[in-house]
Amino acid sequence: MTNKKEITAGIIIIGNEVLSGRTKDINTSTLAIWLSSIGIEVKEVRVIPDVQSVIVETVNILRKQFTYIFTTGGIGPTHDDITAESVAMAFDADYGFHPEAYSILEKYYKPGEFNEGRQKMSKMPIDAKLILNPTSGAPGFYIENVFCLPGVPSILKSMIGGLNNVLVGGDPIISLTISLRTVESEIAKSVTEIQNNNKNVEIGSYPFFRAGKLGVSLVLRSSEKNKIDQCYKELLDFIKIKKIEILKED
Amino acid sequence: MTNKKEITAGIIIIGNEVLSGRTKDINTSTLAIWLSSIGIEVKEVRVIPDVQSVIVETVNILRKQFTYIFTTGGIGPTHDDITAESVAMAFDADYGFHPEAYSILEKYYKPGEFNEGRQKMSKMPIDAKLILNPTSGAPGFYIENVFCLPGVPSILKSMIGGLNNVLVGGDPIISLTISLRTVESEIAKSVTEIQNNNKNVEIGSYPFFRAGKLGVSLVLRSSEKNKIDQCYKELLDFIKIKKIEILKED
Repeated sequence: MTNKKEITAGIIIIGNEVLSGRTKDINTSTLAIWLSSIGIEVKEVRVIPDVQSVIVETVNILRKQFTYIFTTGGIGPTHDDITAESVAMAFDADYGFHPEAYSILEKYYKPGEFNEGRQKMSKMPIDAKLILNPTSGAPGFYIENVFCLPGVPSILKSMIGGLNNVLVGGDPIISLTISLRTVESEIAKSVTEIQNNNKNVEIGSYPFFRAGKLGVSLVLRSSEKNKIDQCYKELLDFIKIKKIEILKED
Repeated sequence: MTNKKEITAGIIIIGNEVLSGRTKDINTSTLAIWLSSIGIEVKEVRVIPDVQSVIVETVNILRKQFTYIFTTGGIGPTHDDITAESVAMAFDADYGFHPEAYSILEKYYKPGEFNEGRQKMSKMPIDAKLILNPTSGAPGFYIENVFCLPGVPSILKSMIGGLNNVLVGGDPIISLTISLRTVESEIAKSVTEIQNNNKNVEIGSYPFFRAGKLGVSLVLRSSEKNKIDQCYKELLDFIKIKKIEILKED
């Protein structure tokens, strides 16, 4: 089996509302699950403020480090929406009304409603390619390997499907979860041995409290199904020996 | 009014489970709301994998950039819990059984139950100070300005109160939210003008969909109450003129 080159992604969450704690970020989870399914592994997420110099610097550092970068937030019509201008600056690209985006928005709104705020949403790097928005009209965009999406989760979710034909993924990452009625310290030693025997599988161990009871979820991840199967078999053997109750497998 | 020096924080979320999308991080929100209340402003969050070199590098970059650093995750008993060792390495500090932590855990478990996995939870930088854990025994720790907390949200939440006397905060950041029945593009221009008149208040504008209807929350943040009051007054004036319905103020 040949190993494809690893395809990686970084996510930049732009928004004071996440840094202040007011909003819990759920876009990372949406993006990561989708990217995993097309064989792209998220390697780092940064949450940064709505500050131009920070956005420019972060985009320029991360876009050289990972195959793809996704930004969320800051592409709306208000004064704190500075992502498009900042990304243009990061690429030293011309920023202004994007003819295609302008035309889409002009058609989207009723005559007389395409006001200054709405027009601003068509300002971006002029040579950017658009990411269409089936929910609320205003498109996202991408320039080279940097993909700029909105912060509102439902709108972001509706837009990412349109990128499946644009991104070049790798082998999808397969994941298998076994939830056990045990505590981590009871299984730590055995799981460490199994991890050492199965270097191509990443085993994560996550304690949980559910309905007042303790448990542990073991998550196996790999792009190679036969490696997951082998590792899973070793885990089952040890679970049987230890007489641990399996709560759920998926 | 004298301005105190700005007190800042960075958060490092250590965990493949967040990068894979399996787990949605809520610790950032818990930490940020608590830190704001004691006048410490979160400036950056990074989510990074359970990889030693990445943890060491990230801790070393951020601890020089911000007043305080908080890490979450990776201090349990399993093979993927490598935060304590990595943080020791970042500080070039001795790593081993911490006598006080060992003694706490030894007393916490019943005789015969203090096994290898549980003992591992007392391994950390030997000179670290402990962060007591009222929920499940195993303490967190801090070394210089880096505070290491667990990843399980309920346990993390139970531990942070113990740090109120350790951290030196600034003026608490006051926040006021007005939710309006409008869309961002209708108010963008006026809010920009009010933001330009009120440089000491940060105005965030966040669209929302709730019960099938559109709205916008405007969030005013500042450490100076009189500046918030003035900005709020200007907003109310314009809301009255535009005849926009106020849904909620808090």
